[in-house]
Amino acid sequence: MAFSFTITHRDGAARRGWMRTPHGIVETPVFMPVGTQGTVKAMMPRDLEEIGAAIILGNTYHLHLRPGDALIARRGGLHRFMGWTRPLLTDSGGYQVFSLAARRKVEEEGVSFRSHLDGSACTLTPEGAVDIQMQLGSDIAMVLDECPALPAAHDVIAASMALTARWAARCRARFLAYRDGAPAGTIATTPDQAQFGIVQGGTSPALREESAERTVAIGFEGYAIGGLSVGESADAMYDTVGATTLRLPDDRPRYLMGVGTPVDLVEAVARGVDMFDCVLPTRNARNGQLMTREGPLNIKNARFAEDDEPADPACSCYACRHFSRAYLRHLFLAGEMLGSALNTLHNLYFYLDTMKGIRDAIAFGTFEKFRQSVHRSFSRRSLTP
Amino acid sequence: MAFSFTITHRDGAARRGWMRTPHGIVETPVFMPVGTQGTVKAMMPRDLEEIGAAIILGNTYHLHLRPGDALIARRGGLHRFMGWTRPLLTDSGGYQVFSLAARRKVEEEGVSFRSHLDGSACTLTPEGAVDIQMQLGSDIAMVLDECPALPAAHDVIAASMALTARWAARCRARFLAYRDGAPAGTIATTPDQAQFGIVQGGTSPALREESAERTVAIGFEGYAIGGLSVGESADAMYDTVGATTLRLPDDRPRYLMGVGTPVDLVEAVARGVDMFDCVLPTRNARNGQLMTREGPLNIKNARFAEDDEPADPACSCYACRHFSRAYLRHLFLAGEMLGSALNTLHNLYFYLDTMKGIRDAIAFGTFEKFRQSVHRSFSRRSLTP
Repeated sequence: MAFSFTITHRDGAARRGWMRTPHGIVETPVFMPVGTQGTVKAMMPRDLEEIGAAIILGNTYHLHLRPGDALIARRGGLHRFMGWTRPLLTDSGGYQVFSLAARRKVEEEGVSFRSHLDGSACTLTPEGAVDIQMQLGSDIAMVLDECPALPAAHDVIAASMALTARWAARCRARFLAYRDGAPAGTIATTPDQAQFGIVQGGTSPALREESAERTVAIGFEGYAIGGLSVGESADAMYDTVGATTLRLPDDRPRYLMGVGTPVDLVEAVARGVDMFDCVLPTRNARNGQLMTREGPLNIKNARFAEDDEPADPACSCYACRHFSRAYLRHLFLAGEMLGSALNTLHNLYFYLDTMKGIRDAIAFGTFEKFRQSVHRSFSRRSLTP
Repeated sequence: MAFSFTITHRDGAARRGWMRTPHGIVETPVFMPVGTQGTVKAMMPRDLEEIGAAIILGNTYHLHLRPGDALIARRGGLHRFMGWTRPLLTDSGGYQVFSLAARRKVEEEGVSFRSHLDGSACTLTPEGAVDIQMQLGSDIAMVLDECPALPAAHDVIAASMALTARWAARCRARFLAYRDGAPAGTIATTPDQAQFGIVQGGTSPALREESAERTVAIGFEGYAIGGLSVGESADAMYDTVGATTLRLPDDRPRYLMGVGTPVDLVEAVARGVDMFDCVLPTRNARNGQLMTREGPLNIKNARFAEDDEPADPACSCYACRHFSRAYLRHLFLAGEMLGSALNTLHNLYFYLDTMKGIRDAIAFGTFEKFRQSVHRSFSRRSLTP
């Protein structure tokens, strides 16, 4: 197998290490910028490389609908299609089906829905989610899971978790079938792809425990914690993360899906999480919210109209080296794309730099100190959710 | 004076040379990308530097309304505000007042209008246009001119031309007054700015001749040909350009404003023009039209859905080195900003590379051959205007 995971340092429950993937090495803990439609919005791949993005995420739901995974496979896979030579992770499409698509119907076989683009009827099965991701050729593929919105009744979450576990077994079976060659009608553009299972179960410790046990029993290269940051409190999320990581094998990477704020990152790392993705730095950038060592900053605020300081004076990204808050505010108010591009570059740099700080702190045994510094910066002012 | 112009090569009426400006050297003939609101849309300044943009244009009208030239002056000028260290040219704002603003009223004193942003009442006088551009601190400022849409009656154009000549004299007087220090209430952020006059007169040879004579009599560092590419035929434009350049001093740069297609560029250079600006490469890029050595290409066309070739196989820009037509089409259809950015990067590279080809051809005495090759590429398929 091309995929492996090695832990090199520990500091409490926090781990530093690296993953080997078909397209290269990823140091962990890692933040993965989200490239929904085959592009991290507003970023050229060279900009992402420059700021040290080691792995980015592609969305199966979006790419399956447009331009289509078969078209991408004929182009040689998603890496080649989007000009990204470093590792890629794809989600299973489940989350978007449950958040974007209309007229969803979940059955044992899979989920049927209407495309948010043109209303056409679509079906996503566990096997289909594997095939799509094989065609996209990501380095890490995710199993199809059901993501109920929280709060939900216990038996709704229990039933959903059980369905996710049955789907996970079907996903793994389909995934393993590719080891004997791609099934008829599919192209595996990264044949030595890895596959991660997903633990569900809401905020119920018992359901999380059962989900972790059933998912680990199937056996995956890594394990994700899904279904969080969907309406529950931060404390409930942290408690659930802490309870779940305890049930996951120590020697496999752990990925907290769709999370989160800088504080969420350090709290999850403190509980043994290795991987993150979130639209927060990119989406908030486009909405004019910049992350800084002093906390979040809303660039449209009138007090920045004549502010000659960079977004974050302590930051050394291209945007902060060359442009003032006054200019970024002007670009935002004028609706200029460059505003989105510079804000995104900065926010991603901030996130990636924070992860580097986390990795270094784990290596130096100073993680607790780093964690407290992130709390100080981000507890004073709230982030746009 | 920090401004000078030197002709180094001639090939027929075409000239190659260089301008010295306060912020650096510009080789001519030159194409100036348009940076309307203090940004060349979708481009980071470093992208522009990479593709060899030597000088870019800022729009007085837009910047005066938002964020305001006084605010920019307090930031140190437009160069510093937008992070652009190379030369800048600013227009006078006249063209946008006549194309964008509402309830225009032209009087001897100046033009009053309503802002297209918020409807507020504004006035632009010749002296005001000089002051705004001094505050912006461009390397080359333009006089305020009136731009009648063509076709127009002869006496309308004649009256407009005469008004432009009177305004030019007032602009020059105001400009020269700065040599004794900036008048009260203004800041000259590039004190050794140059100022260009503008020849008007529609497509009437007699009016153009009179306009050129009156403008040259005032005396400017360079001369622009305005009021073209506003509805007249290409032949009428070329004839007018050819007749006008004959009336302009040989030792001063000549700037054809708002023009044009690749064919326009070579035809105007063949008639002795040294400088160009046009939104065509940038605007068309955002609309999905790419310029190539094979002619224009509309990336949204279905025939590019599975086309693995770059936009222009003969091009060595970043977009063409890394991305396929299939990917650019996907980005365009998905409405992704990266599509605008890559298309813009390519089109500007194509324009700047064409200008480099023109300069080299003039030096080698092969301009006529180059001119014909541009005709072959761009006469077959028409450009989106």
